[in-house]
Amino acid sequence: MSEALIQIGVVGCADIARKVSRAINLAPNATICAVASRSHDKASAFAAANGYPLTAKVYGNYEALLEDPDVDAVYMPLPTSLHLRWAVLAAQNKKHLLLEKPVALNVAEFDQIAEACESNGVQFMDNTMWVHNPRTASISNFLNDQNRFGNLKSVRACFTFAADSEYLKKNIRVKPDLDAHGSLGDAGWYCIRAILIASNYELPKTVIASHKPVLNKDGVILDCGASLYWEDGRVATFHCSFLANLTMDITAIGTKGTLHVHDFIIPYEEKEASFYVGTESSFDDLVTCWARQPSKCTVKTDLPQEALLVKEFARLVGEIKYRNSKPEKKWAVISRKTQLVLDAVKASIHRGFETVEIQE
Amino acid sequence: MSEALIQIGVVGCADIARKVSRAINLAPNATICAVASRSHDKASAFAAANGYPLTAKVYGNYEALLEDPDVDAVYMPLPTSLHLRWAVLAAQNKKHLLLEKPVALNVAEFDQIAEACESNGVQFMDNTMWVHNPRTASISNFLNDQNRFGNLKSVRACFTFAADSEYLKKNIRVKPDLDAHGSLGDAGWYCIRAILIASNYELPKTVIASHKPVLNKDGVILDCGASLYWEDGRVATFHCSFLANLTMDITAIGTKGTLHVHDFIIPYEEKEASFYVGTESSFDDLVTCWARQPSKCTVKTDLPQEALLVKEFARLVGEIKYRNSKPEKKWAVISRKTQLVLDAVKASIHRGFETVEIQE
Repeated sequence: MSEALIQIGVVGCADIARKVSRAINLAPNATICAVASRSHDKASAFAAANGYPLTAKVYGNYEALLEDPDVDAVYMPLPTSLHLRWAVLAAQNKKHLLLEKPVALNVAEFDQIAEACESNGVQFMDNTMWVHNPRTASISNFLNDQNRFGNLKSVRACFTFAADSEYLKKNIRVKPDLDAHGSLGDAGWYCIRAILIASNYELPKTVIASHKPVLNKDGVILDCGASLYWEDGRVATFHCSFLANLTMDITAIGTKGTLHVHDFIIPYEEKEASFYVGTESSFDDLVTCWARQPSKCTVKTDLPQEALLVKEFARLVGEIKYRNSKPEKKWAVISRKTQLVLDAVKASIHRGFETVEIQE
Repeated sequence: MSEALIQIGVVGCADIARKVSRAINLAPNATICAVASRSHDKASAFAAANGYPLTAKVYGNYEALLEDPDVDAVYMPLPTSLHLRWAVLAAQNKKHLLLEKPVALNVAEFDQIAEACESNGVQFMDNTMWVHNPRTASISNFLNDQNRFGNLKSVRACFTFAADSEYLKKNIRVKPDLDAHGSLGDAGWYCIRAILIASNYELPKTVIASHKPVLNKDGVILDCGASLYWEDGRVATFHCSFLANLTMDITAIGTKGTLHVHDFIIPYEEKEASFYVGTESSFDDLVTCWARQPSKCTVKTDLPQEALLVKEFARLVGEIKYRNSKPEKKWAVISRKTQLVLDAVKASIHRGFETVEIQE
């Protein structure tokens, strides 16, 4: 029995909404039914430029879209500082919520958003696309394989890119009243998520920010890093920056295996993505070369990872809408852990690189 | 005009001496003229098992070899704690010195060894083989290229391998009275050298050891890491371990470029070695894939890197012996900087992960 497509409204016309609009169009179980901007003209032009269905409604303010009874769910690419207000209002209007990351200014705000979703029975998911690439499941399988990887000892993640001078002046990610977390919220969010995946979502016990973060004149982080420690000796480090060449690595080293990924957030290609695994890597007898070298694993995907995210989100919404299921909580749980680590890194920076304990 | 081969004596029959003996045999300008062990039988068996020339003399003690007037230079693979005594004696006997790493128990001992070499006019070189691979010069060229790499922002090095239980019980690298630096001296030495190469041999200003180092019951480091900071904002981190799968990475990120190396100490293959470079890496317009991906660079070598090291060492010895040149000082300078950073990491560990300033 076929069910109607999940009707998604897009709240805000940020640049990232172009990519996600295409993803909604590609997802087989969702469609764009409405778009809102603070300007009707802007919303209208955005719809036209991004292949929206002719049936999509255009709103000149967010409230009207959130009150539209035809809208099942919203995708919300607003700046972080606006999330609390609009995400809570969306939930109160019973709209399922696909929320752009970083989710909140701090975990207290995160919890208000999550609570609004829970009490209104709506699905929450943050828009961390790469975890929906089938490659990520393959990576997780490797990292959880006692025979091939063993136990995690250390994991390193980095995401850097060289923002141009226009970006460093005007982008919402360098403005304290918009995406106030700077590179930590934008790039660091992904690094933290990668570290959580590698540690099987166990939160670290303590976090210490690296010295020498770079802040802009308004105090927004442009470049920073941190070390994360678990009680059993696992160590993670990450580096996130707007000031260095585009690099996106995960290196995870276990007692028996090693993982390398060089394009973990945006794969080099849309249709396939690779990673490198070594298991019981070793030298030849005279230690002049490797006897067991790492090998390359490639995972194909028919849909881009962001369309797979939309497909999964819409599937969960459909389960609730058509089969009275409860919302899937794991996405809020994972997202909250990411936020907790992010908050701890900021706290460590603000306290002069002190050790900060993570409290769940 | 052809000059006689440089006559090298091997002082100690450690496992690593097998590889270096082969390298001396392969180097076109050097030959093995003698070998010494504390046991004549062991030295004799070692010579036979490692293809020594039939003319090579066999000594049952180190002094006799060091006093042999036919010996131009020695390769000394003794445990670190014995270096001060035997390296100084070698220099006093006017033997040029190829010394196994880690060089000394601390920089004070290092300086005594270096002073002995300098005052006796002998060449000093530590046995860090990978820097003599032609790939390393190509890597340095990339890192120093303003157009392709820009300015260094962060560098990460790691060298881990999973030592077996026999190694963890009996190897000299886990014994406080032998190679007392443990994984920091053995694996960390290489990481520190890689970081120094990436920072153009400028010493960091401060060093902080990572929390959660693993020590054995005798207090020898089995697993540790550190962060290194320069005043201009460059950051380096490294991780070295006997307790994790074989991994040897350099990741250097500059304002314009990125370097990845995955086999920096021992290349996967003897005859060629690769690295990956990205320059002005970027996404496509919709940020769904990369517009400029990294590329692979491969460097071939006719001789293994350890034979190239011996060749360079013997060339410098020949310059001194046949042309009255002065010893090349850069190898002692680079080696001393490596030792200084190593000492600072140890100090930070011993002081509870305090920030330690490096003083040249």
